[in-house]
Amino acid sequence: MNPYDRLKELGLSLPPPTDGAPAFDMAVATGNLLYLSGHIAMRGGRPWTGQLGKNVTVEDGYQAARAIALDLLATLHAYLGDLGRVRRVVKLLCLINSTPGFSDQHLVANGCSELLNSVLGAAGRHARSAIGVAQLPLGACVEIELVAEISAKA
Amino acid sequence: MNPYDRLKELGLSLPPPTDGAPAFDMAVATGNLLYLSGHIAMRGGRPWTGQLGKNVTVEDGYQAARAIALDLLATLHAYLGDLGRVRRVVKLLCLINSTPGFSDQHLVANGCSELLNSVLGAAGRHARSAIGVAQLPLGACVEIELVAEISAKA
Amino acid sequence: MNPYDRLKELGLSLPPPTDGAPAFDMAVATGNLLYLSGHIAMRGGRPWTGQLGKNVTVEDGYQAARAIALDLLATLHAYLGDLGRVRRVVKLLCLINSTPGFSDQHLVANGCSELLNSVLGAAGRHARSAIGVAQLPLGACVEIELVAEISAKA
Repeated sequence: MNPYDRLKELGLSLPPPTDGAPAFDMAVATGNLLYLSGHIAMRGGRPWTGQLGKNVTVEDGYQAARAIALDLLATLHAYLGDLGRVRRVVKLLCLINSTPGFSDQHLVANGCSELLNSVLGAAGRHARSAIGVAQLPLGACVEIELVAEISAKA
Repeated sequence: MNPYDRLKELGLSLPPPTDGAPAFDMAVATGNLLYLSGHIAMRGGRPWTGQLGKNVTVEDGYQAARAIALDLLATLHAYLGDLGRVRRVVKLLCLINSTPGFSDQHLVANGCSELLNSVLGAAGRHARSAIGVAQLPLGACVEIELVAEISAKA
Repeated sequence: MNPYDRLKELGLSLPPPTDGAPAFDMAVATGNLLYLSGHIAMRGGRPWTGQLGKNVTVEDGYQAARAIALDLLATLHAYLGDLGRVRRVVKLLCLINSTPGFSDQHLVANGCSELLNSVLGAAGRHARSAIGVAQLPLGACVEIELVAEISAKA
């Protein structure tokens, strides 16, 4: 099954890709590596704000990370034209807006990891770090960046 | 215009490159990727200390990030011999020393992004993550690491 | 001297490799780059918990980072079959669980850097960033991720 069929089966569709910013790009390729900028969690078109350990539950954080996975896929689709060109998600850096008392960053990050695995299959398997950070841009509860190996245009 | 002319036009000159440390190097190349170690903000030869949201303004944080951009360029120049060998700045990780209440990390990071873009032109466009961290080595207010694609020696 | 002889000389032996997780892998290769997931500090088979600046001293943090270096080497050995295939440790990201008042992250990170240098020699020299983060998965005091350049199987 290809990634688009898997998305359909999960009842999901790709959102519009995240806008770049004047100062930087959302995706930069070098050789067959593609680096995606950190994507912050969004909900209803606005930053999904809050902090784990304070006013965001693990389950909501998981959903926020899952929403980021969809946004990352949308950026990959927009850049590559075809998600089939993702040969492998290589590495995620999962940044969880955390109080010093919250230590389940890995459970939050699973929201992103598991959706990538579901949609991309074996190509979605990746290395990963999950970290609790003091704060994120615009107050987002989660931010995730990604490195992928891509294949040349068909 | 080449990077050195752009620096001159901006009234800037490259500082001496950041010293390495006994335990690690400031730049390591693999293939045509060059990884630079995290560079902390310096002012007058000493760490530029402080925390955003506490005792460093967004504007001062922006200037600190801009100063780091100059230091990163100095490291690139020292390693490569010629900034023209930077084919592309691929990725920045921008670490902003932040209180939990500060959420304008992206505005601080722009200080680095915008100077790289000004000096390197299209080759300076990069992917990026900006994060609020609890603290940085020597109390620095900003630390930035960089991955670049480089070309072989002429 | 090869890495295994150096380990023996230091009186160290490789621990069993860190288990992967259902959602992600501990090591992913792309071309001749190998990305290792963040490894958290372990002691006696359990997470080495605590926070620098609160209840973990610099010296204990150093030892925790040194223990992670051994775990990273164990993962490299398990993945590559031979530590001689590590052509170069390219980059470490050293995440130190820190209070806002602690700013000696670099001294903690040295525990990892110095052991990699001792065991791998020139191939162990790397670029690095050290950061103070608000919290880490399972309350670990240190987490470190690694990128290495590897050679093809003999």
